[in-house]
Amino acid sequence: MDTQAEHSTGSRIYVGPERDYFGAEYTDTFVEAVERGGGRVVDDPEQAEALVWLGSDNSELPTLLHSGVRWVQLPSAGVESLMEKGLIGTERVYTSAAGVYSETVAEHALALMLAGARRLHEAARARSWRTAGWCRLFAGSTIVILGAGGIGSALIRLLEPFGTRTLAVTSSCRNVAGATENYSAEQTAKLWPEGDFFVIAAPATQATEKMIGARELDAMQSHAWVVNVARGPLIDTDALVEALAEGRIGGAALDVTDPEPLPEGHPLWTEPRALITPHAANPPDALARALAGRIEENVARFEAGEELIAVVDVEAGY
Amino acid sequence: MDTQAEHSTGSRIYVGPERDYFGAEYTDTFVEAVERGGGRVVDDPEQAEALVWLGSDNSELPTLLHSGVRWVQLPSAGVESLMEKGLIGTERVYTSAAGVYSETVAEHALALMLAGARRLHEAARARSWRTAGWCRLFAGSTIVILGAGGIGSALIRLLEPFGTRTLAVTSSCRNVAGATENYSAEQTAKLWPEGDFFVIAAPATQATEKMIGARELDAMQSHAWVVNVARGPLIDTDALVEALAEGRIGGAALDVTDPEPLPEGHPLWTEPRALITPHAANPPDALARALAGRIEENVARFEAGEELIAVVDVEAGY
Repeated sequence: MDTQAEHSTGSRIYVGPERDYFGAEYTDTFVEAVERGGGRVVDDPEQAEALVWLGSDNSELPTLLHSGVRWVQLPSAGVESLMEKGLIGTERVYTSAAGVYSETVAEHALALMLAGARRLHEAARARSWRTAGWCRLFAGSTIVILGAGGIGSALIRLLEPFGTRTLAVTSSCRNVAGATENYSAEQTAKLWPEGDFFVIAAPATQATEKMIGARELDAMQSHAWVVNVARGPLIDTDALVEALAEGRIGGAALDVTDPEPLPEGHPLWTEPRALITPHAANPPDALARALAGRIEENVARFEAGEELIAVVDVEAGY
Repeated sequence: MDTQAEHSTGSRIYVGPERDYFGAEYTDTFVEAVERGGGRVVDDPEQAEALVWLGSDNSELPTLLHSGVRWVQLPSAGVESLMEKGLIGTERVYTSAAGVYSETVAEHALALMLAGARRLHEAARARSWRTAGWCRLFAGSTIVILGAGGIGSALIRLLEPFGTRTLAVTSSCRNVAGATENYSAEQTAKLWPEGDFFVIAAPATQATEKMIGARELDAMQSHAWVVNVARGPLIDTDALVEALAEGRIGGAALDVTDPEPLPEGHPLWTEPRALITPHAANPPDALARALAGRIEENVARFEAGEELIAVVDVEAGY
């Protein structure tokens, strides 16, 4: 493959800022991904027709945009903070990383569920034998996946050998491959007493905010676990803290919190039924590798004038 | 089915002692299993031709034995404590519960590996955001299963969606279904630098005692995890404590320990790289249900004069 030739013919794409979101050691990975996709990396954003945004401070994004930029590839699957600030408009195409991290996040969700079933959060804190209660068998459990998109589908594949009953909830009541049953968002009320585990994997929108609150927690079984690998605001944190303190549910495993980061001294840090991981579902190595793959694919599609993957729907908010 | 008729024709089988090993609430489960298998439950062990032993104090077992007892069904998969005390002889058939708990123990082994990869032991102990380091992706890991019998086979089925490289070690270098590669016990030396995770699932015999010691730990990768769901003495505990304290391996997740129970104040309780579960891989509900199934099957075979499942090999020691 003649890389030089690609450089002279491909679209001009700015990749940056460096040393942000990912460590600087990953920038080369993304630059190479753009080049493999047939793009030409430029150092000056003013020259760019497209932008691979690696920034963590989204307020800086508009400073790089100009009318020549026709496409922005974003680094995260969730884009609600950009949406809220009105930073995503219809004047150009924005693509998120939705679906890129599905498998690694699904793995984290399974790890958290198994930890809950096997009481590993208690075991980790124990300082003597038999302080923990008996654990549950996870196989055969009923798993409710709230927002069964890419993460949900990846999770269903991991659950297959466990013979779980998997109830997939989607806004459109889509038929999710591998799910035992499918439900619409409106039908969730009848699922709260059903689930042994609730996995929250929905995008953060106005419709999903505090989808788990006092009423939902009250309707759950006393051994039920809530696992959040999506976004913190999907749970009413105060209601959760109360339900956990009163032992109304079995536990909560949260990779995302509201507020996030969870401040020191927050009651969840010392709640025996809680297990908090610090938005760590995506190990950076796996994350960079996965994002690079998406960048390469989307650059190739951009070059070919094809539809890009994971175009943000400004109307839907994700 | 005419249960009375079975009672008058089936072999006389004693089930007990009650309120031991399992709670008394499970005795009925086992009595019913014997009856479903076609046996006749007797209250007096003197009358028994076979014995379903539920005791946790094995030294009491000989008091129930007499020349009329032709078969003893034991409640645990490992029988090394009975073997050591010389309580298992060749004058009658003994069957262990080997294989009965494979799926629940395999589930626990996977939970422990995922917890190690995802640093859930650290997360559970954290009291502030970002105290834990970055976690690893478990998918694609190299898993060495030391003693790939029933638990190993069940684990391989659970690992399938993760695309792991699974190296199965058996004493006979058996071709284990689903394993990526097969090795004999003599070939393990070359596997220590290979594994991301080592799952110990071998029986406790003289040959397997301290199979993981200082030399083996030294040969492992610095991120490697040792997971023990078999028996404590298969690991040299002092060597493990030292390897963990010096950060020579990634961590150890132990459902069984040596000594067991692990005494209060033992360094493993406060070792940041260790995760201890108190011999809890088998939740009692699942355990009783699984054992009842084996009892029914073996009683039916006993009645039919067929070979029983999991006959203890006195020579091999398991």
